[in-house]
Order: sequence, then structure tokens, then C-alpha cells
Amino acid sequence: VQALESPLSNRLKSLKKDKNFNYMATNIGFIGLGNLGTPISTNLVSSGRPLLVFNRTPSKMAALAEKGAIVCDTIASLASKCQVVFSIVSDDAALESVVNGGLLAHLQPDGIHVSMSTILPDTAKKLFDLHQGKGQHYLAAPVFGRPEAAAARKLNFAVSGKQNVRKQIEPLLKDAGAIAVWDFGDDISAANTVKLCGNFLIASALEAIGESITLAENSGVDAKKMWNMLSQTLFSAPVYQIYSNIILQKKFENAGFTVKLGLKDINLVLKQAESVAQYLPLAKLLQTNMQELVHSGKPDIDWSAVSLGAKR
Amino acid sequence: VQALESPLSNRLKSLKKDKNFNYMATNIGFIGLGNLGTPISTNLVSSGRPLLVFNRTPSKMAALAEKGAIVCDTIASLASKCQVVFSIVSDDAALESVVNGGLLAHLQPDGIHVSMSTILPDTAKKLFDLHQGKGQHYLAAPVFGRPEAAAARKLNFAVSGKQNVRKQIEPLLKDAGAIAVWDFGDDISAANTVKLCGNFLIASALEAIGESITLAENSGVDAKKMWNMLSQTLFSAPVYQIYSNIILQKKFENAGFTVKLGLKDINLVLKQAESVAQYLPLAKLLQTNMQELVHSGKPDIDWSAVSLGAKR
Repeated sequence: VQALESPLSNRLKSLKKDKNFNYMATNIGFIGLGNLGTPISTNLVSSGRPLLVFNRTPSKMAALAEKGAIVCDTIASLASKCQVVFSIVSDDAALESVVNGGLLAHLQPDGIHVSMSTILPDTAKKLFDLHQGKGQHYLAAPVFGRPEAAAARKLNFAVSGKQNVRKQIEPLLKDAGAIAVWDFGDDISAANTVKLCGNFLIASALEAIGESITLAENSGVDAKKMWNMLSQTLFSAPVYQIYSNIILQKKFENAGFTVKLGLKDINLVLKQAESVAQYLPLAKLLQTNMQELVHSGKPDIDWSAVSLGAKR
Repeated sequence: VQALESPLSNRLKSLKKDKNFNYMATNIGFIGLGNLGTPISTNLVSSGRPLLVFNRTPSKMAALAEKGAIVCDTIASLASKCQVVFSIVSDDAALESVVNGGLLAHLQPDGIHVSMSTILPDTAKKLFDLHQGKGQHYLAAPVFGRPEAAAARKLNFAVSGKQNVRKQIEPLLKDAGAIAVWDFGDDISAANTVKLCGNFLIASALEAIGESITLAENSGVDAKKMWNMLSQTLFSAPVYQIYSNIILQKKFENAGFTVKLGLKDINLVLKQAESVAQYLPLAKLLQTNMQELVHSGKPDIDWSAVSLGAKR
């Protein structure tokens, strides 16, 4: 795999020849090629940014390498060559192992870690402090959007962190596929709280859509006709339009976002609620239903199936 | 009060003089001047339709009389003079007492009762049969929209019933303030099932919005900023835009729709679910929270306060 890195030095050399080009400011790393990481990193490569990628499962990097990304075999080698490193991994533990598994040790001073994962606000604080201690920067930039939205460059990013870092990274997020970047200010934990609230709201909508469709169908009403009305009127929002369709058609395989990941996020919501002594009965109900689905052996279906988890 | 009716006979006489004017086809009755009935009947009067009104509390008819509506002192006297009678009252029992309190006995054969109330699908079936037995027609036309939407002529009606009746009434619903009329076919109970699903979905959104705002605020996040984002992106729908504002500002007084009425509707949802052997955990949760608010002495605040009902 080491050999795969050879194009980089050639590329850097050619970049250095152009005196007006600050290659260090635009040399970008990307860690985590999951359902969202893949289309986001593809957007970055397509925008012409020099991109270095790392993924735990190397096979997922092949398609990106064909598009011009430079494949790295360790987080350390990626981190040492980039001014800005994006990461998007599945949970808090995975993100901490990225940071402690080479990123923190090898990112240069003033390097920026842009963290897109959905994690606890407290984890964001912890990682911010770790990077700060090395003279590096950490920006919270959790992302809203399914893989289709990423491919269509219609992602929404919530960002929080130091003002100059937010401003510096915004154009890169546009290249990554943002239709909009929403600024939540200096408090590093704010964007992740917003992301948790957003995912809780989506999951709530999924449960409500699911219950409405079952009630309509069992009452002899054409639920498709009903949602044709609702998604053009009171509920004319992407969440309802996209998910009512999926739930009506019961297209729960080939998940854009799995129940297992949904449950992880609802667990984070309830953990955050607990940390501020807040009782969230609807979040609790969603947790119960998602647990039922996971325990019934369906952890990998789309999370829009949440209402199927309810015990009859 | 009887004297109030005298302008009608003069008016009917003058209408009869115009041979091209079929006054019976356009003479409309309106029963129920509540929060929604008032702006809807005002729309009908403003559209130039001859309108006869009845309300249990007579004082509520004064403003409409000033706009040209003819005030009736009994349901019987109204029913005997109208080809089409709209009704919008608070619950199934109130509607049945309207039908059995003069409407059924005095509406002429081929007269149409357009029923806008939120009621059980089974009640719609029952009233359809009663009218049918008298050679009259019953159309289910439950309405979506708060009083402000009625005044702005942005109501959505779901209709079900006989096809020719649906077609005949559609233009009148436009005059009543419809931005759209959604046709759910011949089965008389369909539109009311859709209405129950719709109100359940709204109440679910209210609970979710409320929990999200409390979590954000308790976590130190500017919840207004958060909803500024969410209501322009994932949740860019009227329900979320209108209610996130109300909940953020905690404007629960001067209710557009009270918790008491919300609880009534959620009870209907659960009754309907029970009748088709369906378990709806989210509807159950909403019922519990609304009951808490009603029992804590706040039955008349806006139903968007639902999440405040959750026991800590």
C-alpha cells in the first residue's frame, strides 16, 4: 500500500513549482469512507482539491484513487501531509481512536481537524481541548443529509468553534457538498447538540409517519393519496417527502441510514438529555422501538422502519 | 331573535325577481361559529353568497349579520331555507345534536350537509346513513388550518362522499377559504380518517419540537438559531415554521387550538386505532401529556404546549 503514496510527492513537487499556489493551505485529508464519507470526499476530489484519503477498510479507497485522490495507509502519514483533515466515522469511540491513532500526533501546529461525525457535545469539547493542547484546531461540523443529498451537493452543515476557523473552513464545506453552512458560534459543543436535536426530530417524524400510514391502511384509506396531500401541504418538507415515500413502499433494505446507527444517535440524545437533567419521553419511545428492531435481528434496515419496532 | 329573520324573506323575494338566479342552489346555511367557523363563514359572506347562520351562543352572530349574513334562531328555520348547510362544531356529540336537533328533520330532500368537524370515521358513516334515509346528502369535509389560515383563505379540505356531491360542493369550499380541496373518494369515512392522521401528525411534531427546544436550551444552545436552520431546511413545512415560533416564544395563551380540543382529537385517533386493532405508542404518549396539561388546570392553552405535559 505504501507504493500508492508515491504519486503524492510528484504531485506536491509540481504544485511547489507554481509559486502562487499555497499547497499546504489546500492539501486536504479525509478519514472515513462510509455511506456519507464516500460521496463527500468524491465531491472534494471533483472540485479539484488535492485530497489524501484514509479508510480502515482499504478497498473502499479504490474508486476515489481513480478519481485522483491519494491513498494513505496510515492516519499518521495522512495527517503529516495535510493542513486540513476532515473526519466522518460512525461513533464517538471511532472518532477518538482516529484522533489518538495518529491524527493528534502528526497534524502540524495550526492544522485543522474538521469533525463531521454525530457525537456527544462533550466528546467535541474533549477533542477540541486535545487539539488545542497541540496548537492545532478542532471544528465541529456535523452534517445533515442522506447519501443522495451528498451526491447532489445538498448537504447542510452545522458548525461551531473558533470564528477564524469557521470562516476558513466554510468554502471547503461548499466544495464538500454543502448547500448551506449554518453557524452556531464559538461554543464548540453547540453544533453537535443541534445535530442531535435534528436527528431526534427526524426519528420522531419517522415514527409519526409510520403510525399514520398503518392507521390509514388499517382503516381502509389510501395512505399514498393521504401522503400526497400531506407532503404538499402541512408537511411539505424534505424529511416528510423523502421518508413517507420510503415507508409507503416499505423500502427498508439498502438502508441510507440504518436502525443501528439511528439507535446510536437516540442513545446520544438521551445521554445528552441526562447530562442536563432533561426528560424526553418521545426520545425514550424511539429508543425502545429501535432497540426492538435491532434485537429482532434487523439492525441494518433503514431507520425509517422505526415504528415497526413497537410491541403490539 | 325571531325578528332578526325578517330581512331574509325580503332578500329571497328580491332574488326570486331575477329569473336567471337559482337562489335555492346558492342559499347556504352555516352552523357553528367557533374559532374556525367564524372566519370560514366570513369568507362565504364576503364571496357574495347568501348566507344564513346559526350558533348556540347568539352573540357570536352579530359581526356576521353586519356583513350581510342572515341570523337564524333555530337550526330548523335555517335548515328549511337552505340547499346546502355547512357545520363545524367541537365534537361528535355536538354534531349529532345538530343533526338530530333540526337539521335532519328540516333539510329538504336533495339538500346537502357539508360536515367540517373533526369526528370519528364511524360517526361520519352514521350521519351519512341518517341523511340518506331522508333523501338528503352528507359530505365529509374536515378542514386543516388554524384561524389565521382561514382568514388568509389558505385552508385545506379533505373530502369524501358521493362523487356528484363532491363536485357540486368544491366551488363552495373555495369560497369558504380553501386553497385546495383534496378528494378521498366515495368512502364517506375516508376524509375523517385522513383528518385524524393529520392532527396526530401535527401533535407529534409539537411534542418533538418542544422536546428539541428544551434539550437545546438546557444544553446552552440558542434554540431560536437552531429552528431558524431547521425550519428552512429539513423541516421547511408550515407546521414546523408556525409552531416552532409559538413554542420558542412560549405563546401558549390566546390559543388557536386548545389542549382540550387536541386531547379530544388524540382520543379519537386512539379510538379509531382501537377499532382497527392498531397500537399507536406515539399517540398514546401524546394523550398522556395532554391529559397532564388538562388535569393541571391548563385545558385552554394552545396545544403546542403538549411537551410541557410530560411528567419529569
